[in-house]
Amino acid sequence: MIHFEEALNRFKEAQHKMKALGYSTSMLFWDASTGAPKSGAEVRSQAIGVLSGYQYQLMVNDQMEQDLNTLMANLEALNEIDRVIVKDTKKEYDKMTKIPMEEYQKYNMLISKSSMVWEDAKEKSDFEMFKPYLTEVIDYLLKFAEYRGYEGHPYNLYIGDFEEGMTVDQLNVFFDELRARIVPLLKKIADKNKQIDTAFLNRSYPVHLQDEVSRSLLEQMGFNLEKGLLKESVHPFTMGVDIDDVRLTTHYYENDLASALFSTAHEGGHAIYEQNFSKDLQGTMLANGASNGFHESQSRIYENNFCKSEAYLPNLLSRLQTVFPEQLGDVSAQAFYEAINRVEPSFIRIEADELTYSLHIMMRYEIELGLIDGSIKVEDLPTVWNQKVKDYLGITPPDDAKGVLQDVHWSEGLFGYFPTYALGSAYAAQIAHYMGKEIDVDHCLKAGDFKPLTTWLNEKVHQYGALKKPNVLSEMITGERLNSKYYCDYLEAKYSKIYNL
Amino acid sequence: MIHFEEALNRFKEAQHKMKALGYSTSMLFWDASTGAPKSGAEVRSQAIGVLSGYQYQLMVNDQMEQDLNTLMANLEALNEIDRVIVKDTKKEYDKMTKIPMEEYQKYNMLISKSSMVWEDAKEKSDFEMFKPYLTEVIDYLLKFAEYRGYEGHPYNLYIGDFEEGMTVDQLNVFFDELRARIVPLLKKIADKNKQIDTAFLNRSYPVHLQDEVSRSLLEQMGFNLEKGLLKESVHPFTMGVDIDDVRLTTHYYENDLASALFSTAHEGGHAIYEQNFSKDLQGTMLANGASNGFHESQSRIYENNFCKSEAYLPNLLSRLQTVFPEQLGDVSAQAFYEAINRVEPSFIRIEADELTYSLHIMMRYEIELGLIDGSIKVEDLPTVWNQKVKDYLGITPPDDAKGVLQDVHWSEGLFGYFPTYALGSAYAAQIAHYMGKEIDVDHCLKAGDFKPLTTWLNEKVHQYGALKKPNVLSEMITGERLNSKYYCDYLEAKYSKIYNL
Repeated sequence: MIHFEEALNRFKEAQHKMKALGYSTSMLFWDASTGAPKSGAEVRSQAIGVLSGYQYQLMVNDQMEQDLNTLMANLEALNEIDRVIVKDTKKEYDKMTKIPMEEYQKYNMLISKSSMVWEDAKEKSDFEMFKPYLTEVIDYLLKFAEYRGYEGHPYNLYIGDFEEGMTVDQLNVFFDELRARIVPLLKKIADKNKQIDTAFLNRSYPVHLQDEVSRSLLEQMGFNLEKGLLKESVHPFTMGVDIDDVRLTTHYYENDLASALFSTAHEGGHAIYEQNFSKDLQGTMLANGASNGFHESQSRIYENNFCKSEAYLPNLLSRLQTVFPEQLGDVSAQAFYEAINRVEPSFIRIEADELTYSLHIMMRYEIELGLIDGSIKVEDLPTVWNQKVKDYLGITPPDDAKGVLQDVHWSEGLFGYFPTYALGSAYAAQIAHYMGKEIDVDHCLKAGDFKPLTTWLNEKVHQYGALKKPNVLSEMITGERLNSKYYCDYLEAKYSKIYNL
Repeated sequence: MIHFEEALNRFKEAQHKMKALGYSTSMLFWDASTGAPKSGAEVRSQAIGVLSGYQYQLMVNDQMEQDLNTLMANLEALNEIDRVIVKDTKKEYDKMTKIPMEEYQKYNMLISKSSMVWEDAKEKSDFEMFKPYLTEVIDYLLKFAEYRGYEGHPYNLYIGDFEEGMTVDQLNVFFDELRARIVPLLKKIADKNKQIDTAFLNRSYPVHLQDEVSRSLLEQMGFNLEKGLLKESVHPFTMGVDIDDVRLTTHYYENDLASALFSTAHEGGHAIYEQNFSKDLQGTMLANGASNGFHESQSRIYENNFCKSEAYLPNLLSRLQTVFPEQLGDVSAQAFYEAINRVEPSFIRIEADELTYSLHIMMRYEIELGLIDGSIKVEDLPTVWNQKVKDYLGITPPDDAKGVLQDVHWSEGLFGYFPTYALGSAYAAQIAHYMGKEIDVDHCLKAGDFKPLTTWLNEKVHQYGALKKPNVLSEMITGERLNSKYYCDYLEAKYSKIYNL
């Protein structure tokens, strides 16, 4: 038993150090994204290299292997939190050690090169440049899948890295229903040809006033700005380095009111999640979302289900009208609601409206699956891509920069990541549905009173952090696993009304 | 020789890692000082603890001792840069290992507590609270001096930590001359009773415009904002994490134009130094000032000798008048010059004018010396302090918060640090004197053309970083070691003219 306690203490000490190194690395990224001089990139990347070297040494060594084995053999002696941490760490340890270190290092060098080449290729809209790198990345992923071992489809491994317990079989069911219901819905909307005016969203909105509005929106949503920070960066993101230090960014465009506002709502949802993990999880690796999909569910529920709702938008509009009387004085609540929720097929995923967004994800999922199982060849990607955009959205990308090259993910080896965006929206709809059984959500939103909603989410979702796996958490909250029905119902109801279908 | 090369490679690898850890720690401080939420202090201090643990392990271990011995025995085989790095590291190694680790840790815990108690004591203006901590800090310093060994006065050790080669004997000569010439000068100014109006400096100056002016001043001085960053913090400071990433802060007060402006000029001087170390020194521990005094000489020369000069201020005023036409339209160049340089004895060192500043330092030096050699008892400090303020400045502090408790340094064990502020001003005057033999400084300043001045300093001072020790560098630049004559001459000439003495 002394052996066991020593192992536990050593393990916790290593976790503590990993947390400190992870915190430091995050801060360097934060700094890099929020104003650091470009010329400092070299010294920063050297520092990150050294920190990650220490992280690797802490994680992969004989002592850690011994301690993990000791702890895994005594799981019943651990409390629930430590038990999950030990099991998750063991899983991560196996993942890191099954791949030969040399190959993993080569892969990391490839990734670093590949993402630089992608940036260049995107700028030049030249897929040929990127092709050999993507081919090599996929070859590595297939090889690593063999090292790591998997059940069923090799893609299960990669989706599982981001969404524990999710499989290709489940995803196929999920996307099949989405395809069956959203594609016809979009068709009906297109046929309706209803004109919605959005020009007033592109009037001049001074950035410092947008910043004020973003802050007050965050406060209204329930984000504690005293224990966090809002800044600006090129691409909005959220970084919770600790329950007591959660940071998010947005990006202001003077001639686009909606962009920063709903970026703030989106990141605010992530950030509220990060601020409300149980104090018991503070400083541990479980102070994190249950999964990528669950994290995304919290950003989506605030962004779409709450902030873009018919109930809330009049409240937001009247607040905005006090700040921007000249720009918005002549806009009605209905016109504002319709403009914010206009459906418009477009090439770029991150600019897509709520409805077409899911189709962008669906086609990426189909392509990833095909690349991994060999049914799609890298060389055919631009053709396959453009055909899918045509099929699902009815438009054709003018070039590869606005097509297959638009997203960074594949250049970084991030396969299995895209689907979690759609899972997030679907979880959001499912959670909102069950929330509606206990709370009059529209009543709260009309009054701009997020408190009951946020408190409900704190209790049902946020507090658990990564202590509960997504499937378990979903069952705890909604009595069932992920079910795409709620998401499709929600989209059909919302857009049928807006477009008078 | 293989043995030697292995030692050198290992040593360089350790230096590289130390640099990365130091960089990361600096970034956490930068973050903490420029907007991080207060609530994040705990997780930050844990991270800093872990990083400094790694730094200690890298520095103090048997392998490092062996390698340092190998390298010290083969100094002639090293190039100049490596030779200085090895010697400096050896000195640091000896310093760190001569003090028993347990005592050093206890001391660090005391320092951490002591600086918190100081903050509280200062707020309450209660010296009694702070007394036992300061007593204990001094006891440690005396004990550490015995462990470390010293020649002559034990204070030599502490001044030497910040200004290599400086001794009590030299400092006594330095301050004796200052005392002999500045005290009578101040007396004459006081007797003259000339009234200088400064009220216009306290008109309303919008902060965002002050920020614009600060940035343009930095550019004019020769700071490259593309490879650096200016932000705001409570206390202005400079942080050069790399030649290609130099950051500085200032602090804006709406009703005080001079404060931020000359803080920017001061920190800008430090920052220009950090940006202009030779590329050969990049990434090494020698990418640093030659000493504290030399670093301060570069901040002072820009702040005082250049920016507060009769030659430059009219140029600055006319730039300011375009930004603040209403606030400064009615101010003449002479009135501006006199207002910026008004002499006014005051209690707080950091708010002191250029002339009385040196007296603030002198009395701290006398007190530090007395505390270390036992001729001043901690319990008598408030009395001794107030007497010296009375003697040198002719005023009496209303309480200890504005007296003996005003500065943080002693609570952090920083003895020997204060004198370097005065050394900096003196080096600045000496360097400016010799610069004047080669460049028509006033001509450049009148035109607002800093380029010849900055280029001269780049060549004579900046490029060497910490490669040359202060005494050597002083001789290289001026043909002699520190000589207080130039500083006293400068002050006498400047203030005799302003006050028509």
